[in-house]
Amino acid sequence: MAAVTTSRIGSILKLSLSSGPVNALSPPLITALANEIAAANTPKSGVTGILLASAAPKVFSAGLDLTQLSVSPSSKNNRESVSKYIGSFQNLVHALAGSHVPTAAVVHGACPAGGTVLAFCTDYKVASSIQRSYFCMGLNETRVGLAPPLWLHALARNNLNSARIADRLVQLGYLCSSPQESLQHGYLDAVIADATPEALEAHAIEQLNQLAAIPWNARVQAKLGARKEMLSLLENGNTDEMVDCILGDEFQSVTAQLMASLKKK
Amino acid sequence: MAAVTTSRIGSILKLSLSSGPVNALSPPLITALANEIAAANTPKSGVTGILLASAAPKVFSAGLDLTQLSVSPSSKNNRESVSKYIGSFQNLVHALAGSHVPTAAVVHGACPAGGTVLAFCTDYKVASSIQRSYFCMGLNETRVGLAPPLWLHALARNNLNSARIADRLVQLGYLCSSPQESLQHGYLDAVIADATPEALEAHAIEQLNQLAAIPWNARVQAKLGARKEMLSLLENGNTDEMVDCILGDEFQSVTAQLMASLKKK
Amino acid sequence: MAAVTTSRIGSILKLSLSSGPVNALSPPLITALANEIAAANTPKSGVTGILLASAAPKVFSAGLDLTQLSVSPSSKNNRESVSKYIGSFQNLVHALAGSHVPTAAVVHGACPAGGTVLAFCTDYKVASSIQRSYFCMGLNETRVGLAPPLWLHALARNNLNSARIADRLVQLGYLCSSPQESLQHGYLDAVIADATPEALEAHAIEQLNQLAAIPWNARVQAKLGARKEMLSLLENGNTDEMVDCILGDEFQSVTAQLMASLKKK
Repeated sequence: MAAVTTSRIGSILKLSLSSGPVNALSPPLITALANEIAAANTPKSGVTGILLASAAPKVFSAGLDLTQLSVSPSSKNNRESVSKYIGSFQNLVHALAGSHVPTAAVVHGACPAGGTVLAFCTDYKVASSIQRSYFCMGLNETRVGLAPPLWLHALARNNLNSARIADRLVQLGYLCSSPQESLQHGYLDAVIADATPEALEAHAIEQLNQLAAIPWNARVQAKLGARKEMLSLLENGNTDEMVDCILGDEFQSVTAQLMASLKKK
Repeated sequence: MAAVTTSRIGSILKLSLSSGPVNALSPPLITALANEIAAANTPKSGVTGILLASAAPKVFSAGLDLTQLSVSPSSKNNRESVSKYIGSFQNLVHALAGSHVPTAAVVHGACPAGGTVLAFCTDYKVASSIQRSYFCMGLNETRVGLAPPLWLHALARNNLNSARIADRLVQLGYLCSSPQESLQHGYLDAVIADATPEALEAHAIEQLNQLAAIPWNARVQAKLGARKEMLSLLENGNTDEMVDCILGDEFQSVTAQLMASLKKK
Repeated sequence: MAAVTTSRIGSILKLSLSSGPVNALSPPLITALANEIAAANTPKSGVTGILLASAAPKVFSAGLDLTQLSVSPSSKNNRESVSKYIGSFQNLVHALAGSHVPTAAVVHGACPAGGTVLAFCTDYKVASSIQRSYFCMGLNETRVGLAPPLWLHALARNNLNSARIADRLVQLGYLCSSPQESLQHGYLDAVIADATPEALEAHAIEQLNQLAAIPWNARVQAKLGARKEMLSLLENGNTDEMVDCILGDEFQSVTAQLMASLKKK
């Protein structure tokens, strides 16, 4: 099964993450997403909106793939491979946040860390009010020992309700436990009462169509202008900020414990 | 009739836009406003506050003067003339946003695009809660194919409730249809319940007086410091960002259709 | 009596301002605070949180020490001494805002100007809902003729609910008169209903413990990253922005009147 399942709903391109049990951002998933976004990124593609969803019932995406980040003796990873992986992730973030085609994310289930990063890169992020025990959303990077790079601070400030909330909740590695709480802080743009997955998708497509009705160049320039600081921080292609932290003792130690506890489950 | 009607209410200088049916920002209106603001811009002027209002019953200002922006064969405009016009508009924005004298805007009616820009440059923008069918407020530039320049993004972030709202609503070219909605997003600082135009003006003057009571230099430096990024983006005198967009096919095509539909009315 | 009374509550270091009747930021108070923060600023110190409080019943801190800022003929101050004093204050602000140890402020009473600056530098600022006549909180610098330097604008934007509120309320030199109003604008992170001083302290310590539970390096980098702009503005060690304003006629005149009225009381 492909890491991303694609389908078309009229001129909308739906990208359903379908990689393993929790949609960890594995190299094939990152490559597939990046390729789809790049191919759609022009009016000639005929794609007028990208809908990001998940094929997993309880998870949007669990974020970065820990197996790519561990440099324990039992792994094949080294600085070069970690840097290559992080570079591909950052390129995906840049491509999604700067997509010329309007984008939206439908968040059903768990959406921690890198999952929230993907949602934050879109133009509209929405969930149903139906509470599910497995729902979570937030930037919990610090809890696993990962310091947010500067572009992630900028992305958080661009989405959350205030610079203060971004500072406080990113430091705390806070995860919202309900769609309503996510909406309240700005993790989501809207929560639709009692919406089924189908109703939610229809709502998101309506929003994408509203954006697609705006003159193309003006809309694209408006988007890139509003996100200039964040996009610029990604444009130097520098991965050292994240890689230095990942290779440090703190992250390796926290990750080793986390992976051991996940294996037990 | 002058493009701006001036009057004094004690030490308050009231500037009423009175240019044509919709207060489009014609060259004479821009010049008159800029001259009045420059003349008042020192304690020696005796002016302790500038009240920006409209002499038109249903319109604050319709924004940029489309006849200055069309470069169709039937117009006399070219890159040089468009650049001169945009330069004069940007200079007005800089002068109003950086005015040493406290400023306020009373918004009664339609206030799209450049109308909202003027209001956003003041220190206090207020409307009555009385709903009028013709009320609108917002930065709808993208809808007419005009990409907001970087200074306009900074101005939007300085006024609207969050960076997210600025990104989203500027991309959408969104117009609020009521004073209450404008207040909710930060387009206005206050909405006064059932206020008549006279009551609204009195309220705005009270706010101007509060600002005028603050020691002059400290207040001016506080204002310029808070708006430094936005003012800096205007200080290079560069009009290319807006002019390149205006001369592009997309804007010219959308504007031609808009002007044709306005002529029919 | 020392300018700062220190005590330990488990691994929490409590710093109670106890300098004169109103905790003006006298040179000994600044030195004592800076020394305590520096000594705690490493995991080796064993300190897992700093609780900033006041030993005065009605005042958190009245802010800068006016006797250090007057250059009237009757004072011994000159540009050099004022610059030295401001430099020590700015270094304290940098050390507190960039503290590697989590910090919190418990605000009971009057907390104008420099008092609010200290609270804004912490990771959590809280008050009880019990209203006291002497409560105040805000950046009223402009009212005494002091223009906020750029780092203070950045600090205000980092704490208050929006850039607009920061621009408007800093220009006005606005003081909130209740904890509830302070919370509403973002001057405080929380107001605890009917909390006694002891309950408030326990609440703040709980918050400090939540922060201390996050992996150290990731949390510190997250904090420094979110505050990078503000901290950078302080790192050049330049005091001219504040000193030029303090030595100006406006500030000296307002301060002379203020000190004369305080002496009469």
